[in-house]
Formats: sequence, C-alpha cells, structure tokens
Amino acid sequence: MSMTDDVADLARRLRRLEDEVEIARLIASYGPLVDAGHADSAAALWAEDGEYDVEGWHMRSRNDVRAMVGSDYHQSLIKGGCCHFLGPAHVTVEDDEAIAVCDSMLIRHHDDGFRIFRAGGSLFRLRRLPEGWRIVHRTARLLDGGAEARALLGAGVLGRPA
Amino acid sequence: MSMTDDVADLARRLRRLEDEVEIARLIASYGPLVDAGHADSAAALWAEDGEYDVEGWHMRSRNDVRAMVGSDYHQSLIKGGCCHFLGPAHVTVEDDEAIAVCDSMLIRHHDDGFRIFRAGGSLFRLRRLPEGWRIVHRTARLLDGGAEARALLGAGVLGRPA
Amino acid sequence: MSMTDDVADLARRLRRLEDEVEIARLIASYGPLVDAGHADSAAALWAEDGEYDVEGWHMRSRNDVRAMVGSDYHQSLIKGGCCHFLGPAHVTVEDDEAIAVCDSMLIRHHDDGFRIFRAGGSLFRLRRLPEGWRIVHRTARLLDGGAEARALLGAGVLGRPA
Repeated sequence: MSMTDDVADLARRLRRLEDEVEIARLIASYGPLVDAGHADSAAALWAEDGEYDVEGWHMRSRNDVRAMVGSDYHQSLIKGGCCHFLGPAHVTVEDDEAIAVCDSMLIRHHDDGFRIFRAGGSLFRLRRLPEGWRIVHRTARLLDGGAEARALLGAGVLGRPA
Repeated sequence: MSMTDDVADLARRLRRLEDEVEIARLIASYGPLVDAGHADSAAALWAEDGEYDVEGWHMRSRNDVRAMVGSDYHQSLIKGGCCHFLGPAHVTVEDDEAIAVCDSMLIRHHDDGFRIFRAGGSLFRLRRLPEGWRIVHRTARLLDGGAEARALLGAGVLGRPA
Repeated sequence: MSMTDDVADLARRLRRLEDEVEIARLIASYGPLVDAGHADSAAALWAEDGEYDVEGWHMRSRNDVRAMVGSDYHQSLIKGGCCHFLGPAHVTVEDDEAIAVCDSMLIRHHDDGFRIFRAGGSLFRLRRLPEGWRIVHRTARLLDGGAEARALLGAGVLGRPA
C-alpha cells in the first residue's frame, strides 16, 4: 500500500471513531441539560423535525422538546430534585446515519433519600447534519416486563431501527 | 522523524484508541442484550471457552452463558421487568490482551416503581481474536462490604487480573 | 492540501480524541478506586493542589483527598457496602485545559437490598500536566431541587467553569 493509501485509511478510521465519540458525547449531555432546565440546548440535540416518543408523549420537533422541558410537569420534577441518569451509549455508525442505544433512569429526590421512579431503554436514530450529529428519532420505553422495551434494546445493539 | 515514522506512530495510537472504544462498546452491549433476552448475541460477547463467574454461578463457555440467559431465573427477571445497568468501563489494553472494570446494577420493576436488587463490580479480561475483542473471563461481585468486590475493583483499575 | 498537511491534521484530531478518551477514563476510575479504598490512587487523580468541593467538605490537595478516603466516615461506607456509581462523562477539551460533567450516585447496601443514598452532578476542571490529565477542581452537588447542582450541570455541558 502506498503512503497516500495509508493516510486515507487512517483518515477514514479516525472519522469513524470521531463519529462514535461525538454521538456518545451528545447523548451524555441529555441528562445534565434537562436536569438543569436548559430547554433550548436540550432541544438543539434534535434535528429541527426530530421526534421523541416517550411513554405516551410524542414530540415531533425541536419546539416540542423545548416545550416538554418548560412544561409544568418537567419543572416540578426539577424543583423536587431529579436526575435523568443515562448509561453509556452503544453506537453504530454507517456513513451519515447512526443508531445508538442506552439504558436510562429517572431518579427523584425524597425526604428520606433518592428513589428510581423510572428505568428503561432508549433507542436513538441520528443523522449527520451540516452542524453535526443530531437526533432524528428517540424512542424510550420502561423496562417493566413489556415487549416493547425488549425489542428496542435488541434492535439498538444490532444497529437496526426497531 | 520522517513522514513514514509519523504515519506509523499515528496508526499505532489510532489502533489503541479503536481497541479501547471497541471494548467499551462491547461491554455497553451486555445489559441491553440480556434484558432483551438475546441469548445468542449475549453469549457471542465471550470467547468460545470464556468464563463468567458471578456470585455462585460459574459459567465456562458460550453455551453456559446462553443457557443462563434462557434459564427460568433470568426469564422471570425479564418478565417482571429488569435493567442490567452497567457503568462506563475503564479499559486498559496491552497488545492483544485487555482488562476492563465497571460498576453494575440490577434494577427490578415493582408495583410502586423500581428498586436496586444488586449493585456490584465487574472485572473483565479480554482477548483480541480474529473476529474481534471477546471476553475471556468476567468476575462479578456484590458491593456488600465484603473484600472480594473491593479487590476486584482495585485490580481492574490498575490493569491487573485479580 | 499536501500530504504533510494531511498528516498534521490527522495528528491534531487524534490528539483531541485521545484527550477526551483519557479524561473519561480517569473519571471512570474514581468510583472503583474509592470503593476499593485505594486512597493513594484516588488522590493521584488530582493535581498536587487540586480541590474537591463536595457538600460541605472542601478538600484542597491530594493529601486532603487521601485523608477523605481514609476517614472513619468513608471507611464505614466501604465496610457497610457502597458503590460510587458515576455516569459517562461529557468532556470538552481546549488545548491543555478541559471541563467534564457527569451524574453520580452513592448506592449503599442494606439488609433488604441496595438504596440510593445520594444522587447529584459533578463538574470537573482538568489540566494537562507532564504526567497526564489531572483534576484541578471538582464540585459535586446533590440534585435535591436546589439551584447549585442545576447551574453546575448546565455550565459543565457548555464547557464553562460554574
């Protein structure tokens, strides 16, 4: 292989790694942003018409995500003390599309300590846009024994949309 | 340094980073796979004769791991609602061998929310095989005050088998 | 662009990625080290005069961090069974300085299982020293509804000291 080929091969591999790390970093910012109440920054993790489908609440745009963070329900979570704790994301990149999956918990503060209010899985579809990777679709489901969360976790690791 | 040396140095550093990220990604897939009940895919994280030693259950092959996921005990966890939530792995690579360590929780669904059933540490020994990195040995111990889990966590960060 | 420029560009991008992964790895070692009781190794994550400000306990050196791990309070946590479970760090590097943020939980063992004793956010400022990246300042605050933890999480993701 010529040195030009070597360098092209390194550039391709480095870009894949940068993509994986950038996507994991984006997902790692979700919890801190919504717990801080940063509605605009949380919304900006999604594409303009990106979707977030979570247990009976289907958001279909950045505006909808922004409104969720600003909602009375979310603000009451924050005021009472909450931690959206996401696990490390498993990321699969293919060109300008990616699939990621992770576990997540919603921990709430109580007088006698902290309790896990929800635990579930999240499947993300992401796309490389001019401004960087953004979420096109996120589905979150409780791990309460139902089939949906299980299908979502399996599809996520295998790198397929559910 | 000549450009050939520069490129060889970059290739070596990139490969180390790829190794670390690939191993962290493999470990991040364990929870979703066993919570989804994907017995074959979970077993395939191990080498053919890889071991998994967890609190009185010592598996010694992919077949044993597959059987664990299919067992009545594990299936009853899944049906009741469970989340094997692993923390970010700390990975140390040396050539074709690696050590990784992380915390993990088993969260179970109850009528009134979710509770932590187990919390512990896991030490992984991994090997680079033709098909990629695979687990050669995993030991998991509860963090219940006993000495074993503590020894395992310390050895894991220092990059030594316990 | 010449091949020399290409190689220089790859080297710059690879170094940034190495920095991000090294910092995430350092932070992922904190929990295992303090739960194992490795006071020296935990202290060595900080710069010599690094600070750790956690809920009414302000450490101002490696010696102070070492003393915290050796304290009666921390040793009683370990003996009862504890897990300092940190989430994946969101890291922002700028030259030889970095900001990282993550969620963390302190899980304690009880006769009937494990419970979350504390849940909060941590903001880290790090510096590249001759021996590698080290923590210059860490602030940890409970997510109990107060304004401090929220400010800290937001500042962390935006890559600014709080």
